[in-house]
Amino acid sequence: MSDVYFDDLELADRFTSEPYTVSAQAILAFAQEFDVQPFHLDYAAADESVFGGLAASGWHTAAIAMRLFTTGPLRFVGGAVGLGVDELRWPVAVRAGDCLQLETEILDARLSQSKPKHGILRIRNVLTNQKGEVVLSYVANALVQRRPDAAR
Amino acid sequence: MSDVYFDDLELADRFTSEPYTVSAQAILAFAQEFDVQPFHLDYAAADESVFGGLAASGWHTAAIAMRLFTTGPLRFVGGAVGLGVDELRWPVAVRAGDCLQLETEILDARLSQSKPKHGILRIRNVLTNQKGEVVLSYVANALVQRRPDAAR
Repeated sequence: MSDVYFDDLELADRFTSEPYTVSAQAILAFAQEFDVQPFHLDYAAADESVFGGLAASGWHTAAIAMRLFTTGPLRFVGGAVGLGVDELRWPVAVRAGDCLQLETEILDARLSQSKPKHGILRIRNVLTNQKGEVVLSYVANALVQRRPDAAR
Repeated sequence: MSDVYFDDLELADRFTSEPYTVSAQAILAFAQEFDVQPFHLDYAAADESVFGGLAASGWHTAAIAMRLFTTGPLRFVGGAVGLGVDELRWPVAVRAGDCLQLETEILDARLSQSKPKHGILRIRNVLTNQKGEVVLSYVANALVQRRPDAAR
């Protein structure tokens, strides 16, 4: 679905992204810029950490989920503005070579009180690896535009 | 504080990071890789959006907070492993040229049930801009090492 508006979605609708493969280089580059902890930066230190090997920063994993959300089947006209996120969890670490895929579910939809041309979607994003393990999940509220002929 | 262990912290302790200035180039580069929405990528589209001008991706803002956390005064021996985040909010958009600073508060501290050499800290991270406006806040649980002579 491209050119999506608030009014085009229904509760329990689900959307799946393309797959995305994470390289060791990408894990190291993100960590060097944003999360300079040994288990994200150094193979030997990572082996001795609770991760038992190089693991992506959780914020890198979250950024990959956003990439898959914004390049996926739900292309909102005017974009989707994140209002807040809860229940952000990383049950399994992301490793170099992992192939990730995002599933988005519409949990709730309500009109915005303050912006009559917009609605607020409550969504659950779940990112899984090639084994089907959940590596990231969260619930988010996002502000999206209403279809012009619906927003009166 | 460098070489910090779980046992070195007390409830309500607060720590402040160095300042960090966000460039337009960094906002655009992050968005091109992770959040390809017009208001993070294109000045004209951003002017017409609800942001009224170029704004950093919320996940970029979160990644900057992690950079300031991991390069700040709290350098945990063995690192801090994020277990989960709640109440992640972006009350004010981050703009090119903004100077951001992170404050971390210790909300709770308890021993890990499953990992006797570790404790779990509950922290609040609050990122503010040069006007003192909160641009990001969240509560997180992080697994950190106990001081070797304390963990018996």
